[in-house]
Amino acid sequence: MFYLSGQQLSVQKNRMEINTFKKELENFLFKLQEDIIQSLEVNDGKGKFAYDHWERKEGGGGRSAILENGQYLEKAGVNVSAVYGKAPDFLFKEKEHAPEKITAAAELNFYATGLSLVIHPEHPFIPIIHMNIRYFELSNGIWWLGGGIDLTPHYVIPEQARWFHIQLKNHCDEYHPRFYPDFKKWADDYFFLPHRNETRGVGGIFFDRLNESCGLEKETLMGFWKKLGELFIPVYSHLMAINKTLSYDSKHKEWQLIRRSRYAEFNLLYDKGTKFGLETGGRTESILMSLPPLAVWKYNFIPPESSEEHKTLSFLQKNIEWTLA
Amino acid sequence: MFYLSGQQLSVQKNRMEINTFKKELENFLFKLQEDIIQSLEVNDGKGKFAYDHWERKEGGGGRSAILENGQYLEKAGVNVSAVYGKAPDFLFKEKEHAPEKITAAAELNFYATGLSLVIHPEHPFIPIIHMNIRYFELSNGIWWLGGGIDLTPHYVIPEQARWFHIQLKNHCDEYHPRFYPDFKKWADDYFFLPHRNETRGVGGIFFDRLNESCGLEKETLMGFWKKLGELFIPVYSHLMAINKTLSYDSKHKEWQLIRRSRYAEFNLLYDKGTKFGLETGGRTESILMSLPPLAVWKYNFIPPESSEEHKTLSFLQKNIEWTLA
Repeated sequence: MFYLSGQQLSVQKNRMEINTFKKELENFLFKLQEDIIQSLEVNDGKGKFAYDHWERKEGGGGRSAILENGQYLEKAGVNVSAVYGKAPDFLFKEKEHAPEKITAAAELNFYATGLSLVIHPEHPFIPIIHMNIRYFELSNGIWWLGGGIDLTPHYVIPEQARWFHIQLKNHCDEYHPRFYPDFKKWADDYFFLPHRNETRGVGGIFFDRLNESCGLEKETLMGFWKKLGELFIPVYSHLMAINKTLSYDSKHKEWQLIRRSRYAEFNLLYDKGTKFGLETGGRTESILMSLPPLAVWKYNFIPPESSEEHKTLSFLQKNIEWTLA
Repeated sequence: MFYLSGQQLSVQKNRMEINTFKKELENFLFKLQEDIIQSLEVNDGKGKFAYDHWERKEGGGGRSAILENGQYLEKAGVNVSAVYGKAPDFLFKEKEHAPEKITAAAELNFYATGLSLVIHPEHPFIPIIHMNIRYFELSNGIWWLGGGIDLTPHYVIPEQARWFHIQLKNHCDEYHPRFYPDFKKWADDYFFLPHRNETRGVGGIFFDRLNESCGLEKETLMGFWKKLGELFIPVYSHLMAINKTLSYDSKHKEWQLIRRSRYAEFNLLYDKGTKFGLETGGRTESILMSLPPLAVWKYNFIPPESSEEHKTLSFLQKNIEWTLA
């Protein structure tokens, strides 16, 4: 387990309490990683995860777990990390969403822990999924939560997108009436490829820099955040179950590989987590676990109108109210 | 043909002369595109290029040519563009190499024309190649040349890398003794993936913002630049000829697809031309023609020591003096 030592949290009062909080947090994440792995192995029926422990030179480390060449899942990566050290400069450059108390002059340490997963199914009717929950803290006491789940079906099936969004809305609504609409919009705006003028998939929810300033207490927010992580298992188990028995042919596979190239484009061109990870010396193979096992770039491929592929493209846009669709 | 109309070059004196220069430049580039296409079709023996004309909303356009699924070449894109309009802000932000006369306050127009190509062979022993020559001009009379050729073998064969660099050195040395060493180092530094700690391939030459400040006259520099473009045909014809008869198996193909994923990473994470193109509303399909037709991301693949694949990795570093290798 990796957690920040008391010495590094110079301004904080109760070292024991803080370490207990972090230890529990990391225990939760490693346990969640195991639960997710077990669930995916059962649902796949063939593939097995392999673990890699890694350390970060500047402080901390993590545990990556990867499944390759399963029955339904071609590549699934589930990564937990807990890292700390000198706070990176970019934190103080990003004005958007930045708590006012952060000043560029500060010489602060940071602590960050989280779980991140991306699944690329072999089966083209099972959607790609991404889930991430992360906790971030500075040595001046400022902390926040970030996270989200979003779905990228190779073929958008509106009833499934609707079901997926309802699960997220139900979860959010238990905590705050603004969470679902705000975080859904955030996902729409974030998972967007301007050069394609399309969203990565049917979206989901995304949030960052969430803390008491939203009006809820830390404990409540931690509950929201943990339960979001736990929501992954029932949601994806359902989506696998209803799609894995569908038959498909080489046309569906080709389309899947083309859609995967868009996924790679998003992650390499725009994803902040990927950039942050690579720039701060994260472990490359764990960060780029999100990239598809196999991807196709076909020049100027435009599916014929009235095809299923064309229909899918028409759904890749912002501001679709999926819960009402 | 696309070129800047006289009205847009408010500070320039001789409209006729300027338009003649640009028209000739574009004629040269479109002719070079045709010559390259013809040469590649002959060397491939099966694949044929298809053309796409496109226009840029803000001014100008281009002609893309693409070959897919040839005998030896899986995807080859050769693109000529000539675009103009209001100069993009980023020009004034990039301090490095920026001529002093450029000021952020200026409301300038730009004109840019160039040829760019990337070839992804089907045959894993034929190297990937990239070549680009570009001319850039501002309405205040400032102009410069940019360009380069670099080679990305899936398997590095030192004698071939040496031969390739000697061709470039011979060409450069006819113009300026600093061109080869400076532009070779520039390519090493530019075509580098920090997160992999490896160069994209065996490098070549790369330059930007080249003009009279180097001590040579514009006409001489234009000669250097045009001949660089023309060098592509004999160089790549030779590399195709000596490699295309070699036999290969599925292990070589797998390695090729893994190496291609690094190529995609470079182009999407770091390549300035790609970023510039996408951010200034260039034609996405023409810009991303450089991406591989098929690529594999395999988790943490480390080739066994003493394998050919491992040997190739050992050559993917900066500052190898290939002409002396």
